[in-house]
Amino acid sequence: MNIDHRRGITDLYASTRNLSLNICAKISNEDHIVQSMPDVSPPKWHLAHTTWFFETFVLKNFLTDFKPFHEQFEYIFNSYYETVGDFHPRAHRGDLSRPALDEVREYRSHVDQQIHGLFDSGQDDENFLKLIEIGIHHEKQHQELLFMDIKHNLFKNPLYPAYHQHAPHTSPETKPYQWLPIAAGIYEIGASADGSFCYDNEGKRHRVFIEPMEIANRLVTNGEYLNFIEAGGYVRPELWLSEAWNSFKDQPESSPLYWVRQDDKWYEFTLHGLQPLDLNAPVSHVSYYEADAYARWANVRLPTEQEWEVAAQLYDHRDRIFDIDHLYPSAQSDDSFDIMGQLWQWTASAYSPYPGFKAEAGALGEYNGKFMCNQYVLRGGSIASPPNHIRSTYRNFFPSHSQWMFSGIRLAREV
Amino acid sequence: MNIDHRRGITDLYASTRNLSLNICAKISNEDHIVQSMPDVSPPKWHLAHTTWFFETFVLKNFLTDFKPFHEQFEYIFNSYYETVGDFHPRAHRGDLSRPALDEVREYRSHVDQQIHGLFDSGQDDENFLKLIEIGIHHEKQHQELLFMDIKHNLFKNPLYPAYHQHAPHTSPETKPYQWLPIAAGIYEIGASADGSFCYDNEGKRHRVFIEPMEIANRLVTNGEYLNFIEAGGYVRPELWLSEAWNSFKDQPESSPLYWVRQDDKWYEFTLHGLQPLDLNAPVSHVSYYEADAYARWANVRLPTEQEWEVAAQLYDHRDRIFDIDHLYPSAQSDDSFDIMGQLWQWTASAYSPYPGFKAEAGALGEYNGKFMCNQYVLRGGSIASPPNHIRSTYRNFFPSHSQWMFSGIRLAREV
Amino acid sequence: MNIDHRRGITDLYASTRNLSLNICAKISNEDHIVQSMPDVSPPKWHLAHTTWFFETFVLKNFLTDFKPFHEQFEYIFNSYYETVGDFHPRAHRGDLSRPALDEVREYRSHVDQQIHGLFDSGQDDENFLKLIEIGIHHEKQHQELLFMDIKHNLFKNPLYPAYHQHAPHTSPETKPYQWLPIAAGIYEIGASADGSFCYDNEGKRHRVFIEPMEIANRLVTNGEYLNFIEAGGYVRPELWLSEAWNSFKDQPESSPLYWVRQDDKWYEFTLHGLQPLDLNAPVSHVSYYEADAYARWANVRLPTEQEWEVAAQLYDHRDRIFDIDHLYPSAQSDDSFDIMGQLWQWTASAYSPYPGFKAEAGALGEYNGKFMCNQYVLRGGSIASPPNHIRSTYRNFFPSHSQWMFSGIRLAREV
Amino acid sequence: MNIDHRRGITDLYASTRNLSLNICAKISNEDHIVQSMPDVSPPKWHLAHTTWFFETFVLKNFLTDFKPFHEQFEYIFNSYYETVGDFHPRAHRGDLSRPALDEVREYRSHVDQQIHGLFDSGQDDENFLKLIEIGIHHEKQHQELLFMDIKHNLFKNPLYPAYHQHAPHTSPETKPYQWLPIAAGIYEIGASADGSFCYDNEGKRHRVFIEPMEIANRLVTNGEYLNFIEAGGYVRPELWLSEAWNSFKDQPESSPLYWVRQDDKWYEFTLHGLQPLDLNAPVSHVSYYEADAYARWANVRLPTEQEWEVAAQLYDHRDRIFDIDHLYPSAQSDDSFDIMGQLWQWTASAYSPYPGFKAEAGALGEYNGKFMCNQYVLRGGSIASPPNHIRSTYRNFFPSHSQWMFSGIRLAREV
Repeated sequence: MNIDHRRGITDLYASTRNLSLNICAKISNEDHIVQSMPDVSPPKWHLAHTTWFFETFVLKNFLTDFKPFHEQFEYIFNSYYETVGDFHPRAHRGDLSRPALDEVREYRSHVDQQIHGLFDSGQDDENFLKLIEIGIHHEKQHQELLFMDIKHNLFKNPLYPAYHQHAPHTSPETKPYQWLPIAAGIYEIGASADGSFCYDNEGKRHRVFIEPMEIANRLVTNGEYLNFIEAGGYVRPELWLSEAWNSFKDQPESSPLYWVRQDDKWYEFTLHGLQPLDLNAPVSHVSYYEADAYARWANVRLPTEQEWEVAAQLYDHRDRIFDIDHLYPSAQSDDSFDIMGQLWQWTASAYSPYPGFKAEAGALGEYNGKFMCNQYVLRGGSIASPPNHIRSTYRNFFPSHSQWMFSGIRLAREV
Repeated sequence: MNIDHRRGITDLYASTRNLSLNICAKISNEDHIVQSMPDVSPPKWHLAHTTWFFETFVLKNFLTDFKPFHEQFEYIFNSYYETVGDFHPRAHRGDLSRPALDEVREYRSHVDQQIHGLFDSGQDDENFLKLIEIGIHHEKQHQELLFMDIKHNLFKNPLYPAYHQHAPHTSPETKPYQWLPIAAGIYEIGASADGSFCYDNEGKRHRVFIEPMEIANRLVTNGEYLNFIEAGGYVRPELWLSEAWNSFKDQPESSPLYWVRQDDKWYEFTLHGLQPLDLNAPVSHVSYYEADAYARWANVRLPTEQEWEVAAQLYDHRDRIFDIDHLYPSAQSDDSFDIMGQLWQWTASAYSPYPGFKAEAGALGEYNGKFMCNQYVLRGGSIASPPNHIRSTYRNFFPSHSQWMFSGIRLAREV
Repeated sequence: MNIDHRRGITDLYASTRNLSLNICAKISNEDHIVQSMPDVSPPKWHLAHTTWFFETFVLKNFLTDFKPFHEQFEYIFNSYYETVGDFHPRAHRGDLSRPALDEVREYRSHVDQQIHGLFDSGQDDENFLKLIEIGIHHEKQHQELLFMDIKHNLFKNPLYPAYHQHAPHTSPETKPYQWLPIAAGIYEIGASADGSFCYDNEGKRHRVFIEPMEIANRLVTNGEYLNFIEAGGYVRPELWLSEAWNSFKDQPESSPLYWVRQDDKWYEFTLHGLQPLDLNAPVSHVSYYEADAYARWANVRLPTEQEWEVAAQLYDHRDRIFDIDHLYPSAQSDDSFDIMGQLWQWTASAYSPYPGFKAEAGALGEYNGKFMCNQYVLRGGSIASPPNHIRSTYRNFFPSHSQWMFSGIRLAREV
Repeated sequence: MNIDHRRGITDLYASTRNLSLNICAKISNEDHIVQSMPDVSPPKWHLAHTTWFFETFVLKNFLTDFKPFHEQFEYIFNSYYETVGDFHPRAHRGDLSRPALDEVREYRSHVDQQIHGLFDSGQDDENFLKLIEIGIHHEKQHQELLFMDIKHNLFKNPLYPAYHQHAPHTSPETKPYQWLPIAAGIYEIGASADGSFCYDNEGKRHRVFIEPMEIANRLVTNGEYLNFIEAGGYVRPELWLSEAWNSFKDQPESSPLYWVRQDDKWYEFTLHGLQPLDLNAPVSHVSYYEADAYARWANVRLPTEQEWEVAAQLYDHRDRIFDIDHLYPSAQSDDSFDIMGQLWQWTASAYSPYPGFKAEAGALGEYNGKFMCNQYVLRGGSIASPPNHIRSTYRNFFPSHSQWMFSGIRLAREV
């Protein structure tokens, strides 16, 4: 491992750890422990769990005189690693008023200091940097979860508190879709083993055959989605997957998660508070069911993840710049291809292993592989994805009914 | 209303409002918003709800220029008064990180100031003092709930944090039961209309016939209950009500709520932290099912609430002194009758209206009457009952499976 | 045991066993195995279970060469006797297409033959006749359950098949309530130990004090209940117990169980098929919640079981004649006291042990005692109660939400 | 449409309709109405629903004087066609003792007569034969469901009744796996539009790229699966998908559905009754979870449906002969490729639309497309699949936890 790489990782470690604290700097002490549904984790829990990850997978392996910061943190802050041991039930993370936020911050400092100590001591086991790197990317994932969870927690409060006090940008007018063609042929997708970081589920790189099709250059907007609603989208069974339609019987759903109807007008709850619905902005916080039904109504379909990734290879697209002060997706006023960094896009692909995929041995093998069942792949990253965490091979995944991530709709069609 | 009575009420108002804050003074800011099960409310919610009660039922009626402290607090802090309007779902009180604790304290001050303003202005509507009095007693009920809920919240944390850092008293040896006889005859029970405060469910005073029986002078101890467990109490269906036994199928229960088994020893979680099980102390936090099964095993029974109240009339018993620094029931080393202030005692009586009971008109009619179904009466108050809140006619009530209140077992028998 | 008593019992055994078959004679082979909700048992199961009762509690004890008819019938046809052993889960009785109905009938004959053999052999153990008697009354209870369960099963079929093809009687006009007074005083209630049959829960006879009150001479009618509905009865929270109101959130209830609204008219499903709602007939198949809410709306209350039983002692009432061809309650056109045999009447009394009650030892101790929790007492019998099975001390009991028994509403009021 | 094709279809209609009755001929009248879990339908319901299908989709469209056999059968026997109208709730099909079996048989005759009338009248609308053909294949699917549901119903009876009274064949010894290679390359899969029948989900035919791999020539046996169990297969979290492992918390699963442990020996419930576990026979009635965990334990994987279908094209395999008297899969004693007709094989593929798939317009569009979510594809047919109903492009699908279909495990591996 060369010095530059080591320095790069050290810096990335420091900036990543710092960003988590910055994200939480805008919320109150009390906001740190709310869990408004079982899928959500309290912000404090995220701060501690990401720290536990470094403690467990790095310090425990590389510190000769390792002693855990606190004996019971392993039980409390292990998320789901059965191989590591028993853990606190997920749905009860919101019960944990202790350790206090201050103690969690101290825990972070303590572990950071020890990690930096290892960096400084010139630790050069090949596995060391690899685990640090996984830990960094793991924390980046939790940074997006922090935005998702904070947003949901604030939304579940009838006072609708805002994360940012200032309003989001005003959206320009959008233009009609451009349909970008993909010709029939063999393509390669998946992460290459070129040394840059990726999760195990992104590999191995392999060939796929794609029949000819086209993909839309921009996301579906709130205005377009509103047309679907007003055309009776939610009450026409023929537009919906059977599982979706049956779920409506218990809990009728009639809009994306954060849409709020007040006095006959639509509003959207955002990290900038409750705002009048922006018709030009991309529709967000939709389930797979909704994305699929919208596409059926529009007489097109969702792309597969293979098609999506090939499109990302074939066509230019701008890099997104993460801006913690602007956490609302932007409407697109030109014909560019906004494939990355606005909203995660539901694909038609169930989350399955690529050919040749094999989960790692040991606890880190639980990172991805065991979730490859009854979830759908989303691609592209969102305005809430932290810096250096978006790439075209990245496979995000959620159950078909989930709405609380920053998800949107990209359309595709046969030719 | 004479001046002394007015002064008495004013002082009681001030000291009651103050005690709520004192109870919460020992817990952290973050501890204030935990809701570890739907039955529990976050401490901050209690502080606000008791304030809302005065605001809604007193200020709104007696302030000419009434303006709510915050428009949405009625929705957020109404507990269950359907007549008042819609309210935030009970199971989601733990989602409310806002209003912040400081704002709730400000809310309390604001309402207190206005109430004191009414006192000072010589407000003498006969209903005014009555509503103030109900509000005070309502807050006292929530003070006991604060202890119950704080205890449950801390218990659900694997760190087992203590409310008090110091250990409870050491218990002296108990003595065998004394059985206090009640002779057959007509007795009067229920609250007299003598002007002293009582809830509507305590009246009206009426006659009952009691067949001869005897009641135990002291509560069942942890040691005695442990004998029941060790004799297979929890695995013998013939000891249990059918409903209890069937509930075990899903969720096997094998001890009172706060008993914890570690390394083959029994501990009890208390407000003083996790403590070795005190065999002489009264067994606490048992359900009606457990009280009933224990009695059946011991070949006796539970008293009815009528028998209990008559016993309280017939036999001397000491007044309990509320001690916020000692919140664990005391073992009894002599032959006295500890009927009041140690633990609420499950009676064999379902919670039903007394002859001639009629709920008040309006929202306050929802206070008691609508809960008279599928609950059991408990009598006697506990170490967590605040001062001036225990009396022999007081009818507390909980569902048969509940364990989180300070409940114990008093036995009775036929003669 | 004298010869007349023995002959009486022998005859009663034969006629009771025969009636069960007669009740089932009107339904098809396939109707015998439906279980339209977990509370319901398939008719075939009733035929077998009542037989198993005699086999287990009589034959097994008194036949020297006892051999069960079938080894697994104990598992299949034990209802809830934990002391006897494990049993087939209640909610899955409807899965049992085997044993075939013919085999169950053979089982009945086989056991009957053996029981008659014991009669004929002059068996005179004092326990023998006692167990036969319990078995007979047990079967009578299941006869009423047969009517309840057959009715529910047929109702859950969208074809609304009728048990009887002929229409019920036409109802005469009812008259206003007569209010029958009970003066304050000590009364005796409960079954005397005079040798006539009663269940253990009816004793022992004991004294109660009753405050003065009045009880209505007739049941509430469908027409009166319809007024309650049309006055918004089901949408006014202040009329309902909290538990009832909360249950509406999941499953809105807006009429007694068997009322059906078609083309803006009310019908009632009866054992005589779907009939236009008979406004003069007593309202039936109401829950405790509904009986209680109706009484509150009418500004009166339900009687306690003590008051009910004393009224039955004080005032004349006609004997009801069981008529298998007429299974719909009769409207009352005069001022008589119809306290028995029309519909079971919800009382305000939770089902609790009488003073001095003690369940029998052994399996039969499970008959009644273990259900004394969160159920309400109903009194009076119904048109579906078999002959010789109604008496004024009889305590029937059901959970507060149940509607499928033949239940009605009798009102009481303070004076 | 030529005369031969018409005659072929007419005969196939007659023989198919006849087979349904033959399948049910071995069970009792009462067996026809059991629904032992919501997934199961009573056999009588299948007999009527398949008839309703012809009545609704053929007779209603092609009979000029169409009158439904019974007005309410559309409500009762519509399975899930939202476009057709409201339907009886699936979980309550077991409540329907009426219409009686005889009436359902009459319904079948009546519809058959009318369909044959249309054949005889020379009806030659192009859609007519197409709908008849779909109806025939629809009924074949229900024939396999009949076997599945009858088996489950009988199994849920503690008497374990057998469908066949005779024992299944004795299994010969199996041989080690042969691994059949598939070379990297482009292959075509899916049904060609050559006029032979297929469901809409089998098309359109399209190209796929397959990376090199190998597929096993035979299914996993009971003996091999038993090794997995005995090696702690069910208690090692690292072998299981997260969703599977979490489902065990509520309902521990420790064997394939029909394995029964008695006196320390394993038995298997079959259509031939309870039999000692046949170690050489293929393991059956496993969930996707179990198939996946077994493969992980064996250090291989499941094939994708694309790989499976290509293997079926590349390698010879014998035709299976449907034998209603032998309904247990056969062990394989040679090296042949038993890919068809023993057991449905779980593939690693989630059930998704093929490129270019478009559901038909109208109610029949609900046949397949709306279920393309959170289900897995099974391939190959089973011993319970009726004649002429197995082909290599056939895509069966079930949720990942389902076990009641005749499912087995075929392994694949990377090279």
